[in-house]
Amino acid sequence: MCELLGMSANVPTDICFSFSGLVQRGGKTGPHVDGWGITFYEGKGCRTFKDPVASSQSRIAQLVQEYPIKSCAVVSHIRQANRGHVALENTHPFTRELWGRNWTFAHNGQLTGYETLDTGRFQPIGETDSERSFCWILNQMEQQFSAYPESNEELWTLLYQCCQTLKQLGVFNLLLSDGEYLFTFCTNNLHWITRRAPFGKAKLIDDDVIIDFQKETTPNDVVTVIATQPLTNNEAWQKMQSGQMNVFRLGEMVFTRLDKEKGA
Amino acid sequence: MCELLGMSANVPTDICFSFSGLVQRGGKTGPHVDGWGITFYEGKGCRTFKDPVASSQSRIAQLVQEYPIKSCAVVSHIRQANRGHVALENTHPFTRELWGRNWTFAHNGQLTGYETLDTGRFQPIGETDSERSFCWILNQMEQQFSAYPESNEELWTLLYQCCQTLKQLGVFNLLLSDGEYLFTFCTNNLHWITRRAPFGKAKLIDDDVIIDFQKETTPNDVVTVIATQPLTNNEAWQKMQSGQMNVFRLGEMVFTRLDKEKGA
Repeated sequence: MCELLGMSANVPTDICFSFSGLVQRGGKTGPHVDGWGITFYEGKGCRTFKDPVASSQSRIAQLVQEYPIKSCAVVSHIRQANRGHVALENTHPFTRELWGRNWTFAHNGQLTGYETLDTGRFQPIGETDSERSFCWILNQMEQQFSAYPESNEELWTLLYQCCQTLKQLGVFNLLLSDGEYLFTFCTNNLHWITRRAPFGKAKLIDDDVIIDFQKETTPNDVVTVIATQPLTNNEAWQKMQSGQMNVFRLGEMVFTRLDKEKGA
Repeated sequence: MCELLGMSANVPTDICFSFSGLVQRGGKTGPHVDGWGITFYEGKGCRTFKDPVASSQSRIAQLVQEYPIKSCAVVSHIRQANRGHVALENTHPFTRELWGRNWTFAHNGQLTGYETLDTGRFQPIGETDSERSFCWILNQMEQQFSAYPESNEELWTLLYQCCQTLKQLGVFNLLLSDGEYLFTFCTNNLHWITRRAPFGKAKLIDDDVIIDFQKETTPNDVVTVIATQPLTNNEAWQKMQSGQMNVFRLGEMVFTRLDKEKGA
């Protein structure tokens, strides 16, 4: 499988601490050795660093850990290949333009029967179930809305329905962002934590690193981190439920939805 | 204005030498301080490093100079802003998917009257004349062909016509690649050189660096480098003519076209 890492913040914030924990799971404390990637939004633009090698061994990942790029929306992924061989075109995150915005997608899980998903004019470049499901979601969005919808709720409802459909095909844990919103959906493993004043210290699970957020922040900062598994062992991470979607903007949760399963 | 750098090679080749010359022109030997970017194709995938700061001062550019990423198709750009402010979304190269391929575009020059170019469903994210002309080209391609054309000549002819149209709007020097082909078009400044056995030594104009290609290559290697201005001072670079298109594949020129101007 894979692991996901996302961030939503109300001030441009670097993700070096969390990312340095995640990369350990790419070959040292975890088996996700088949590539990694991270996308930073800065304004309307975004940039992605990716490498089809183990993150713990990647010189580019080392730079990303040491070089603080400040962003309000980040999507990251470390890969353990199942669908699609180890190659750059199969390395998450994937970014495509729709409605004049960059959309960035990363997926943890594995789907069956994804080959027939209609992606319309969004053609996959690699072979992963992930990229195909991303293209299918974009096509659904474009089919339903000719431009970015004025009603956020309408878009979020569509995304929720898309995720429920993909959940029927297997494990579908999602991070999706347009730079403003960070959409998250959980099938089995996705955790999140919102840090705000008073800030404390945090200790990574995967590396011998402690950070004192009080020294790194101002009192108004709000920063949410989302990860497949908690990255720190002295904070209260919240586990998402199966079938739940959470949407974050500027560090705050702005939407959550979880429908009760229909009984048999 | 800006400067362009491209490479087409028949074996995966790093571009560290040429790139290290180019980055000097981003703040040291040249005035192109408003950002830089470089896209490497590896198989069907590609990855882009970019930074909206001077390349000569960029830590990411430093990594790219030191870390040899081997590729058969590279597109790079250093920016001196004219249309569009200094920002990540205005930093070249730009990459979009069409026909299941990554297309990467970088432009040197300045256009007038570009605002009305019809980009169809390819919406610009930033404000540059460059990104809009890229979106317009992609839309022209999609309007004319529903999939990658079986006839290369038909595609190249269309691209040639698109470039001639854009040349009417001002200065349009182009690098465009789908990972297999590298399309180049010249309005005023674009030079190229093809290196093959017997390889010799080359000396950068912008830095005190000499390389002995014989030590870096095998006898069958063919590598073409395209740049706005020659990067070395002891080799014979060829200057493209105004209105000329050259197409390279695996280091070799596979197509060239230059129509005579119609007389008055």
